[in-house]
Amino acid sequence: MAEMEHALSSAAKDGSRFVLLGAVGITFCTGLDLVYLSKSLGVDPEQHSEKTAEALKSFVNHFIHFQKPIVAAVHGPAVGLGASILALCDIVWSSDKAWFQTPYATQGQTPDGCCSLTFPMIMGGTAASEMLLSARKMTAKEACDKGLVSQVFHPDTFTREVMARVKKLASYHPLVLQECKSLIGSSIKADLEQANIRECETLKRIWASSHASQFMLHVLDRKLDLSDLRR
Amino acid sequence: MAEMEHALSSAAKDGSRFVLLGAVGITFCTGLDLVYLSKSLGVDPEQHSEKTAEALKSFVNHFIHFQKPIVAAVHGPAVGLGASILALCDIVWSSDKAWFQTPYATQGQTPDGCCSLTFPMIMGGTAASEMLLSARKMTAKEACDKGLVSQVFHPDTFTREVMARVKKLASYHPLVLQECKSLIGSSIKADLEQANIRECETLKRIWASSHASQFMLHVLDRKLDLSDLRR
Amino acid sequence: MAEMEHALSSAAKDGSRFVLLGAVGITFCTGLDLVYLSKSLGVDPEQHSEKTAEALKSFVNHFIHFQKPIVAAVHGPAVGLGASILALCDIVWSSDKAWFQTPYATQGQTPDGCCSLTFPMIMGGTAASEMLLSARKMTAKEACDKGLVSQVFHPDTFTREVMARVKKLASYHPLVLQECKSLIGSSIKADLEQANIRECETLKRIWASSHASQFMLHVLDRKLDLSDLRR
Repeated sequence: MAEMEHALSSAAKDGSRFVLLGAVGITFCTGLDLVYLSKSLGVDPEQHSEKTAEALKSFVNHFIHFQKPIVAAVHGPAVGLGASILALCDIVWSSDKAWFQTPYATQGQTPDGCCSLTFPMIMGGTAASEMLLSARKMTAKEACDKGLVSQVFHPDTFTREVMARVKKLASYHPLVLQECKSLIGSSIKADLEQANIRECETLKRIWASSHASQFMLHVLDRKLDLSDLRR
Repeated sequence: MAEMEHALSSAAKDGSRFVLLGAVGITFCTGLDLVYLSKSLGVDPEQHSEKTAEALKSFVNHFIHFQKPIVAAVHGPAVGLGASILALCDIVWSSDKAWFQTPYATQGQTPDGCCSLTFPMIMGGTAASEMLLSARKMTAKEACDKGLVSQVFHPDTFTREVMARVKKLASYHPLVLQECKSLIGSSIKADLEQANIRECETLKRIWASSHASQFMLHVLDRKLDLSDLRR
Repeated sequence: MAEMEHALSSAAKDGSRFVLLGAVGITFCTGLDLVYLSKSLGVDPEQHSEKTAEALKSFVNHFIHFQKPIVAAVHGPAVGLGASILALCDIVWSSDKAWFQTPYATQGQTPDGCCSLTFPMIMGGTAASEMLLSARKMTAKEACDKGLVSQVFHPDTFTREVMARVKKLASYHPLVLQECKSLIGSSIKADLEQANIRECETLKRIWASSHASQFMLHVLDRKLDLSDLRR
C-alpha cells in the first residue's frame, strides 16, 4: 500500500495526464493479505489492528483525493479491496476473464475501500448487500451491467482495446480531463472520506477483538480459494 | 402493519442473526388495502387520514431502523408498499413468477415506503418515475437488471436456492453481519427518515382532501386487478 | 434556450398536466452550438464566456425547478446538453434509432446540464466517466440498461407507443402527478442547483481561457460528426 501511495504521489506532481492501473500475474488484486494480517494480530492485536487500519485509511484516501483520472485495466480476478478500490477509479476496463468478489462477511471482515458507500450507489442496495454480505461472485459481464465496470473486452484483444482508448484519452487537454474529474467527484468526496473513516474504525475494532481468532480460520479457507485461482 | 412491527421488534431482541421475509398465498404483498382505507376515509376523512399516515410512518420506520439484515424471498407479485418496502431490505431474492408494480399515480396515490428516494437511487430517475408515475409493471428479470432485486431463481427451485443461501448466511458471525449492514446503511438512514416523513405527510393531505372520493373509484379498478391475479 | 425557457414558463402556469418534449428533424438535440460559440469567443472571450454561462445556468435551472412532469420523446441522436438534459426529465421514451453521447473532454469542454452529478448517480461513476471523459457512444438499448432512458421502442411504432402512454398519463389527477414529482425530486434539488453552478463556472473559466482557441479546432471535428449524422 505504501508503494502505491508513493506512485500516486509522484504521478500527482509529474506531467502525466492520468494514471493507468494494471497488474501482472493471474489475478488483478486480491485485497488485504489476511494470512499476514492474522499472524500480526496473533502477536499483538492492539498494535497491529491500529497500524493496519491507519495504513488502509491512508491508502484509500490517496485514491479519494487523486486529482487526475485513474483508468483501471482489470485482466483477472479482483477480490476484496482489489474490487472495492475500482469504484474509486474513474474508468474501469475489464477482460472477460476477470471476476469480482467482496467476501467480507464470509471471512469475518467488514467492507473496505469505501464500498459500503459506493457499491449501493452504483448497483443499488440489494445487489450491493448480496455482494458484501453473502459474497456473491460477479462475472465481468454482470459487473458491467451493474455499473462497477465501464466496458468488457475479450481476453485476446483486451490489451489492444485498452491501449487504443488510453492513447486517445492522452490526446485530450489535461486541464479539461482534470476539471471533468473534479466536477464528477465534487459532490461525493466528503461522503467518501467519512465512509473511509467509518470502515477503518469498524475494521480496527474487529481486528482488535477476540473475534479475530475466529477470522483466522476463515483465512485458511481463503488460502484454498487463492490456490484454486492459480491452478 | 402492527403485527409486522411486533415481529421485527421481537427479532431485534432475540438471538436471530437476520430476518427472512416471505409470504404465503399467490402474491407476495399488494401494499395498503385501498378498499378498507377508502371505506374508513368515507366515514371520517380527517381522523382516518391522520391515523393511517401515522401507522404507515411507524411501520416504515421499523424497517429503516432494524439493525439485523432483512432477506426478502419474493415468490409472487409485489405491488405498491409491497414493492417499495423491498428497497429497505438488504437482500432480495425473487422467483421468476414475481413481478413488481407501484401504481401510485394511477390509483390517485403518492409513493410510500421511501420509494420516492430509493427507487431513483437504485434505478435512476427516469426508470423510477416511469414506475411511480405511469405504473409500468416490471418482470423479475427487469427488477434484477435495475437493481431492485439481487437475484432471480426459477419458480421450481426458488425455495431450495433461497434456503441454501440463507443457511450459509446464518453461518457467518452475527456481529460482522450487523456491522456490515450498519456501514452500508449509515450514509442514507437520515435521508430515509426524511423521505418517510415527506411521503406520509403528502399521503395524509391527499387522503384528507376531497380528492379521496375520486381515488375510491380507482380502488374499484384495483380490485379488478387483484381478482385478475387470483385467476 | 430562451425560447425553451419561455415555453416552460408558460406551461408552468397554464392548465397542462405535464410537458411532452420532442424534436423534429434527424437529431433530437446536439447541445450547445460550438461553432457559433467559438466565433463569439473569438470576438470577445471575456464577455461571451460570461453571457453564455449565464444563459446556460438559467436554462438548466428552468428544468430543475419545473414542477410538472416532463416526458421526453427521443426519436434521434442526443448529444452533449441534448443528452444531459434528459436526466432532468422525469420519463424518457426513446426510439431504437436514437443514440446518446456526451463528448465533453473530446471537444475541450466540461459537463453541462448537471450530468456531472446525475450521470454517476444513474449509471455509476465508472460508466459515467467513460461517457464524460472518453466520449463513449451509447445505443438506446444501453442507455435504457444504464437507466438514462425509461424504455425503448421500435422506430416504426415509436410515436404510437409514446402517444398511447402520454394519453394515459394525462388521465391521472394533475395534483397527484405534481405531488409524486415533488416527492421524487425533493432530496436532490439542492444538489442539482449546486452542480449547475459548479458546471457553469467551470465552463465560463474554460471559455474565457486561451484554451478556447484549441477547442475551436475540436469544433471542426464536431462539424464533421454532425454532417455524418445528416448523410
